[in-house]
Amino acid sequence: MPQINGDRLLADLRRLAEFGAYKSGVHRPTFSPPDIEARRWLAGRFAEAGLEASIDGIGNVFGRSRAIGQKLLLGSHSESQNHAGWLDGALGVIYGLEVARAFREDPRTAASAIDVASWADEEGHFGSFLGSRSFIGDVTDEEIDKARDHNNGMPLREALASAGLAQRKRETIAPSDYIGYLEAHIEQGDTLDEAGLRLGIVTGIVGIRLYRIVFTGEANHAGTTRMVKRKDAGVALVKLSATIADRFPQISGPRSVWTTGAIRLEPGQPSIVPGRAEMTFQVRDIEPAQLQRFEDTLLDLVAEANSAGPCAVTMETVWTVSPVLMSQPFQDALSLAAEKHAPNAFISMPSGAGHDAQILARKLPAAMLFVPSINGVSHHWTEDTSEADIVLGCEALADAAEEIVREGA
Amino acid sequence: MPQINGDRLLADLRRLAEFGAYKSGVHRPTFSPPDIEARRWLAGRFAEAGLEASIDGIGNVFGRSRAIGQKLLLGSHSESQNHAGWLDGALGVIYGLEVARAFREDPRTAASAIDVASWADEEGHFGSFLGSRSFIGDVTDEEIDKARDHNNGMPLREALASAGLAQRKRETIAPSDYIGYLEAHIEQGDTLDEAGLRLGIVTGIVGIRLYRIVFTGEANHAGTTRMVKRKDAGVALVKLSATIADRFPQISGPRSVWTTGAIRLEPGQPSIVPGRAEMTFQVRDIEPAQLQRFEDTLLDLVAEANSAGPCAVTMETVWTVSPVLMSQPFQDALSLAAEKHAPNAFISMPSGAGHDAQILARKLPAAMLFVPSINGVSHHWTEDTSEADIVLGCEALADAAEEIVREGA
Repeated sequence: MPQINGDRLLADLRRLAEFGAYKSGVHRPTFSPPDIEARRWLAGRFAEAGLEASIDGIGNVFGRSRAIGQKLLLGSHSESQNHAGWLDGALGVIYGLEVARAFREDPRTAASAIDVASWADEEGHFGSFLGSRSFIGDVTDEEIDKARDHNNGMPLREALASAGLAQRKRETIAPSDYIGYLEAHIEQGDTLDEAGLRLGIVTGIVGIRLYRIVFTGEANHAGTTRMVKRKDAGVALVKLSATIADRFPQISGPRSVWTTGAIRLEPGQPSIVPGRAEMTFQVRDIEPAQLQRFEDTLLDLVAEANSAGPCAVTMETVWTVSPVLMSQPFQDALSLAAEKHAPNAFISMPSGAGHDAQILARKLPAAMLFVPSINGVSHHWTEDTSEADIVLGCEALADAAEEIVREGA
Repeated sequence: MPQINGDRLLADLRRLAEFGAYKSGVHRPTFSPPDIEARRWLAGRFAEAGLEASIDGIGNVFGRSRAIGQKLLLGSHSESQNHAGWLDGALGVIYGLEVARAFREDPRTAASAIDVASWADEEGHFGSFLGSRSFIGDVTDEEIDKARDHNNGMPLREALASAGLAQRKRETIAPSDYIGYLEAHIEQGDTLDEAGLRLGIVTGIVGIRLYRIVFTGEANHAGTTRMVKRKDAGVALVKLSATIADRFPQISGPRSVWTTGAIRLEPGQPSIVPGRAEMTFQVRDIEPAQLQRFEDTLLDLVAEANSAGPCAVTMETVWTVSPVLMSQPFQDALSLAAEKHAPNAFISMPSGAGHDAQILARKLPAAMLFVPSINGVSHHWTEDTSEADIVLGCEALADAAEEIVREGA
């Protein structure tokens, strides 16, 4: 079995966290100077590991094995959310690097091929999964022409040029080159941490439906407009929202989540009855039928609100992501490895967050392994995972990779 | 009895509406070029009516009678809300001018004294009732130093300088000079219009209490944070808000109103569970006991929400205005005149909106007369009142003024 070097793994993770260090986390937005430096450093580490290193025209960093035959691709992303954690993305990239090194150092696997990738912009500073989508051929030049940094408005083209990537080709996948894709990631929730579990085998990545619900009433003077005459769009919104909070638990699946992240009243003045109100509403579940049950209920509630009046209510779908199931043979290999390294301390679970694996899964068998997030903290600089769990996760991933490569060969 | 000249009254109202004309309304913010021009034109019209005209250091326009003895002061404001109606404020100023002319033209009242004023910034572009508060001695130089235009940030001092008013003294009241203050205004609600009534005798101006309610939970990932673990500040806000909408009608007075004009969720992203939420909540009533009943109930609901958890809820008072009662003898004079001009077509009612009369009432007996707003529209350029109602209102005001002057003399 390939042997993970825990000290080397942790040292590389700590080194990567120096690029854009912020308190105990990192601030390393896509194509910011620290992100570019980190990608160049990664390419250097890939080369030192005997991999053929490159950075392509969208910022994806590749470390390619020189071995013959089909490869197993390991990876994640190396940019971060703003002022966020040191392991989100970085963990899966350095795991890939360490697994490639361990394979190379073990004579029984030295001829096997592990490729490593750090995808660009999984965190969506410029777009949606730009790097992994570019790799599977899903990003057009027109999309790149239009994309801008959501933080500061900088066009993606300028960002690529200042990173020295403007003239480079974007690499795209030849699916027959690969056995499949494995990605490790922090859980970003507290399911593992709270239950004292050490590994999560991802069954699939949840589907998401995001809606915008708009309430149209009549703006008016908050002193002179009698209660019975009002068409208060804010009150209509609050009532529908409270009904959702009452009703949805009754129709929820075991791991469904739903969220109103934004509400806006217009004109938004303390002394004016709101004439228009708007909310976002998002549901996530691994089961398409559950997503549909939520949508049907929501449509019923909107229709009821419209009948009740006095405001008009409309609902539109802003975007949807279909649930993506992970490869069952890969899940089996991960479970076998988890049983060895963390007996009775692992579970199978869906991922509530999106990951590059859901993009790669369109072209390759794909699977994911989760390690615990302390207190479930994510997208915050206090995000962390114990060193013991970090090392254990990489050992399990290496064993699963070895099993998959052996079966796939 | 002084005779109102309806054509002259309407012509002056139409002329005033040309300053800052916007669609069928006006856009004449305080100290904007059209507002300054309108004030100069008003001073000219006051002078033509035989009054001693002046504009003081805060922009109040005065037309002072040269008669001996105590005066009756009539007035309102001549600036507008942004893109608002042609009569809001303007009506009461031109009524004052027309009543002064009618008194002068009638030998029986020619010796009686009517003063007219157009107060500055009742609409609050720079502050709160700046003109009328300055006149009763309630505005300091420090307040003027700090005040800025809420629309464009221009300091009030600069606005006064560019209007040529920087070197002028601010006039202040000598209460013994006056019998009292009368203000006519559009109703801004639909009580008169809907009931087919033509005049409203204002009993008082409602008190207002404005609160800010803040909910503190925990921001988290909307995909990975299970429902049972969430501290969703937005859900806490929506639940309290829906409870208010259920409970307040049960404890309401006959004319109470309450409004949530603004809601903000933080960080306000579709995929992040809100960690903080904030709402404004405002109650208005003419009865201090009713305002207190609302506040007590609100404190109970906040305490219940805090006990129920999982979010912390705090409530603070942003500002309050006490209810102000109108002079009973002046109301009697207005009722007598209304009975004559609109028999069985007038009522006594509180004002849900604030007016300069509530400021003058601190120093003088004060009262107000309302004319109907078509469909109750206010603070919008479609605001309007029929010509017949405009003329009738001025006739009633003139008769009431004559009665008050005779009694007061």
